Amino acid sequence: MKKINVAILGFGTVGSGVYKILTDNKLHILGRTGLDLNVTKIFNRSLKKGLPEELYVNDFNMILQDDEIDVVVEVLGGIEAATEYMLQAMNRKKSVVSANKAAIAANLKELTETALNNNVNFLYEASVAGGIPILTSIRENLLGNQFRRVMGILNGTTNYILTKMNEENMSYDDALKMAQQLGFAEADPTADVEGIDVANKLSILIYELFGEIVKPENIEREGISNVSKEDLKRAESHDSVLKLIGEGSLKNGELIYSVGLREIPKSSPLAKVSGELNGVILEGDMVGEVFLTGKGAGSLPTGSAVVGDIILCGKNI
Amino acid sequence: MKKINVAILGFGTVGSGVYKILTDNKLHILGRTGLDLNVTKIFNRSLKKGLPEELYVNDFNMILQDDEIDVVVEVLGGIEAATEYMLQAMNRKKSVVSANKAAIAANLKELTETALNNNVNFLYEASVAGGIPILTSIRENLLGNQFRRVMGILNGTTNYILTKMNEENMSYDDALKMAQQLGFAEADPTADVEGIDVANKLSILIYELFGEIVKPENIEREGISNVSKEDLKRAESHDSVLKLIGEGSLKNGELIYSVGLREIPKSSPLAKVSGELNGVILEGDMVGEVFLTGKGAGSLPTGSAVVGDIILCGKNI
Repeated sequence: MKKINVAILGFGTVGSGVYKILTDNKLHILGRTGLDLNVTKIFNRSLKKGLPEELYVNDFNMILQDDEIDVVVEVLGGIEAATEYMLQAMNRKKSVVSANKAAIAANLKELTETALNNNVNFLYEASVAGGIPILTSIRENLLGNQFRRVMGILNGTTNYILTKMNEENMSYDDALKMAQQLGFAEADPTADVEGIDVANKLSILIYELFGEIVKPENIEREGISNVSKEDLKRAESHDSVLKLIGEGSLKNGELIYSVGLREIPKSSPLAKVSGELNGVILEGDMVGEVFLTGKGAGSLPTGSAVVGDIILCGKNI
Repeated sequence: MKKINVAILGFGTVGSGVYKILTDNKLHILGRTGLDLNVTKIFNRSLKKGLPEELYVNDFNMILQDDEIDVVVEVLGGIEAATEYMLQAMNRKKSVVSANKAAIAANLKELTETALNNNVNFLYEASVAGGIPILTSIRENLLGNQFRRVMGILNGTTNYILTKMNEENMSYDDALKMAQQLGFAEADPTADVEGIDVANKLSILIYELFGEIVKPENIEREGISNVSKEDLKRAESHDSVLKLIGEGSLKNGELIYSVGLREIPKSSPLAKVSGELNGVILEGDMVGEVFLTGKGAGSLPTGSAVVGDIILCGKNI
């Protein structure tokens, strides 16, 4: 049995999910892995409902300077402060797990180098496609492959809106409103509907698959805010479905990538990824195409991926 | 850089694929992992085409007694001799990677205990669903979940036959003959068409998901040899597709499992798994449903999974 102390930065959707999983499945994880995962501090702006008072801190230094903490989980959102906390934690020899695609994609080089220099883990399975074990597959069992291509539905909000427009003939505005009411879209949906979130995730996927750092702002990008019913009908007339796709491929040694609306043939497994689900096709030179789908967002699915990474940190410590 | 010496037992479909990947992608794997994977001996009954003469041995003891060999890859097929070789290799402190579902399912307890006692790796991703990283997902990133259910199309031969019967209105006999001509079915197709192969794979999945050893002969089992066109039509009339499914679930603490023909609603991702593909739905208490699909057999897809396991052995050595 190995005791691992965990601090969580942020007690929003993902942070509370991580805490729930580490609490509810504590004994199960101990039985399966021999790891006793303890949440010892939770950093948040305020003492929210569900956040145990004895764990609550509102000063990051109380975590940074606590040498008993082995793993820092960063699920704050935002870029600058989150990145700064991650770097500081790693420089204090703590492993870091993050679900924060915006911060990771913006600072991938500095974050991975800092992890390497400090000989700690920096893991971020939850940052791409939520609960789907896509980065784990790339980093573990598919490692014998040279990857050729990735193509994915990486944003549940926009996929939900497109699905509603397509299957229920809703207008873009109505579908967006419904997504906001259900909590799938934020009050300011720009990052989702303009493809910024997909570009962040694609940037991370490209690094994992091809070893290249491509900044998200350098990825050609199209969103869904101008999609019309005519666009959807045109796709339908080609026996296809309109989807917001992030894709990258290696062709004759050249890396090509983009985020945009694509007509996906109904025979493709991506065409069946509906509502708030995510789905990713990977192509390796040996394994051929592998397709994974599941919940790309949400408290517990994203929490599941974070906890998987905490366990891996624990094994490596 | 770490040098890892690998011996391959068997130079059939999978063995030759493993050798090809380790040769063609040698530098790629070295660059990604720091592991220099060298095949130093290949055990086979005879010196086949494509098998380099300087690596060929036809006496297993030449591998067993070679203390330079770190990892033994068992892709012989058959049960008794294969199991004996795996046990002997582990008792000589060599890690073992296998794709041999029949041997693994028959002797799972003894094989895993022998690995544990000798503190070596015993890995078998390739034994279930070929190139699809299903065991890796279960053992790594999804570890924070208590699993509830697994449901999969785990045999490409029978799925190919059912697909041909369904989509091209072929008879069972004609579809089987075509599968045999294409190399998807063996001359004696019993293990495939009677569901024995699926029961072996389900036995392994149950162990990985629920920690229970259920012998394949204790799994209630139905094959496809009695499927009629009427059965397919009945499924179609229910807006479903007839598939050979291996499934296991935990209900109120009780483990339920079976292999049999099921009417799969067309809305399920399993309904779209056609031809020789495999596909698996996992359900965890936190992540919800995750679905993975890809090539469940074949030289390079299965080889990809074997090589992924060799890499993991190499990292752990």
